[in-house]
Amino acid sequence: MTLLHPMTNNSITSQNMTATSVLAIRNGSVLDQRDWLASEEPLEIRVQGPGQKLVSIAVTMRTPGHDHELAAGFLYTEGLIRSGDEIVAIEADELRRDGRPCNVVSVQLSHSFDQARLKRNFYATSSCGICGKASLEQIAVQCPPVAPGPVLARSVLVTLPTALRTAQQVFEQTGGLHASGLFDVTGQLVSLREDVGRHNAVDKLVGQMLLAGKSSLADHILLVSGRTSFEIMQKAAMAQIPVVCAVSAPSSLAVEVARRFHITLVGFLRGDNFNVYTHPERIALDS
Amino acid sequence: MTLLHPMTNNSITSQNMTATSVLAIRNGSVLDQRDWLASEEPLEIRVQGPGQKLVSIAVTMRTPGHDHELAAGFLYTEGLIRSGDEIVAIEADELRRDGRPCNVVSVQLSHSFDQARLKRNFYATSSCGICGKASLEQIAVQCPPVAPGPVLARSVLVTLPTALRTAQQVFEQTGGLHASGLFDVTGQLVSLREDVGRHNAVDKLVGQMLLAGKSSLADHILLVSGRTSFEIMQKAAMAQIPVVCAVSAPSSLAVEVARRFHITLVGFLRGDNFNVYTHPERIALDS
Repeated sequence: MTLLHPMTNNSITSQNMTATSVLAIRNGSVLDQRDWLASEEPLEIRVQGPGQKLVSIAVTMRTPGHDHELAAGFLYTEGLIRSGDEIVAIEADELRRDGRPCNVVSVQLSHSFDQARLKRNFYATSSCGICGKASLEQIAVQCPPVAPGPVLARSVLVTLPTALRTAQQVFEQTGGLHASGLFDVTGQLVSLREDVGRHNAVDKLVGQMLLAGKSSLADHILLVSGRTSFEIMQKAAMAQIPVVCAVSAPSSLAVEVARRFHITLVGFLRGDNFNVYTHPERIALDS
Repeated sequence: MTLLHPMTNNSITSQNMTATSVLAIRNGSVLDQRDWLASEEPLEIRVQGPGQKLVSIAVTMRTPGHDHELAAGFLYTEGLIRSGDEIVAIEADELRRDGRPCNVVSVQLSHSFDQARLKRNFYATSSCGICGKASLEQIAVQCPPVAPGPVLARSVLVTLPTALRTAQQVFEQTGGLHASGLFDVTGQLVSLREDVGRHNAVDKLVGQMLLAGKSSLADHILLVSGRTSFEIMQKAAMAQIPVVCAVSAPSSLAVEVARRFHITLVGFLRGDNFNVYTHPERIALDS
């Protein structure tokens, strides 16, 4: 089996992290800091059997690095191969000129590939390679940047996690559910939804408002109990939510989506402390 | 717009939680307890325009409840509808005879549905409805139950989270990465992989072993830094991993997969305390 451009074994490269500047609010003080984000980029997995065309079978949002392992493991755990011997070669493309990972991995199999065995097809695309930028373009086609305003007082912002936890009815008992809360600018909880999938909790909130006739969430704040990823921010952009807060960290692509679509992104919102990653103009830090 | 069988607004029904029995190890004592799990079941979303066939567009693993909101929100945030007015009716099927949710929601649209706008297609299926049981059958076709053994000492088990954290090179800096560690039965860390997606971290581990020529992980322990879901356990079953441990909670379907495929599932592994959800015979609780 041939590994072209394999990553060094067990190494954590700088691909795994992305530097960003952040406003860190600590006990009322505002600090301009450099912070590290977990890198998030899409990876397209392509497969080819002898005499067959190269077929794109999946796109997954992943942290770059060990892409050949990810491809091999995906094929195995999804039942598309039965052993490592079925892999003839894996080609993980090199970095592109702009320094971003190319985000395509191609696997040559020893046997014909039976597409009927493929159960899932994420973001199926016929384009020649994708990147975080392409993912952003896809959203851009569908929605405009979020309009300016509203402005949220710092004193209101820091009350949101407690309000969410108080309203949570299941989380404390199972420890297994993500919560998403929708608030108005005064910090009043409008609705709460929970789910094992954090993107589902957001979809439930957006769907609830949609079914109630609210077509725009432009005056609302979204708080999620966990981390923010591309998928959460993509959904927030589609629903035109101006402020997204999270109790934990954002990914690199979450910050990129927020910046591009003019969404205020807050992370590590715990007690009086939090980080503002993008568009701080919607937070009145001195109030 | 017609909502057939809508869930009561803002209610958390018992659908959200599933009862299970668990061995709770607390400071060396073994307690037989009843515990609550966050419910996880697949939901199939079907869409139909005027004069069109009903088309299955997505299956997502979700916590039952508010399914009509989830469907509406999904269609909106994925760009398949532009407003709630485009929804004529949503039908969320009733509970089946065995008390499990039917897991199908059908949406009638006011306009023709353009399948070309559909970017994603999860577990695309032509079957008439799916349920957790069907998901399990899908795995069962592909892999046998995990073989008996090995047996892991309690004193070894409780050292794993610290070993994982010590080896993590990125998590502490970004707070945004899931870690998966593969250990041998003596508690030695074999490999660690990190990713924004926890299923990717597992695929990287499995793929690494596969590419190194290890076709079976039958003597290994998998530790994940977060929660365990259907997807993690499905991958563990495919790789024939006998013991899966997590720092946080399992979902209901994770426990079902573990039970069915004879995997020992440990949750809330923190300090000297942990819960054993299935197949405790692989843990020597008195050593």
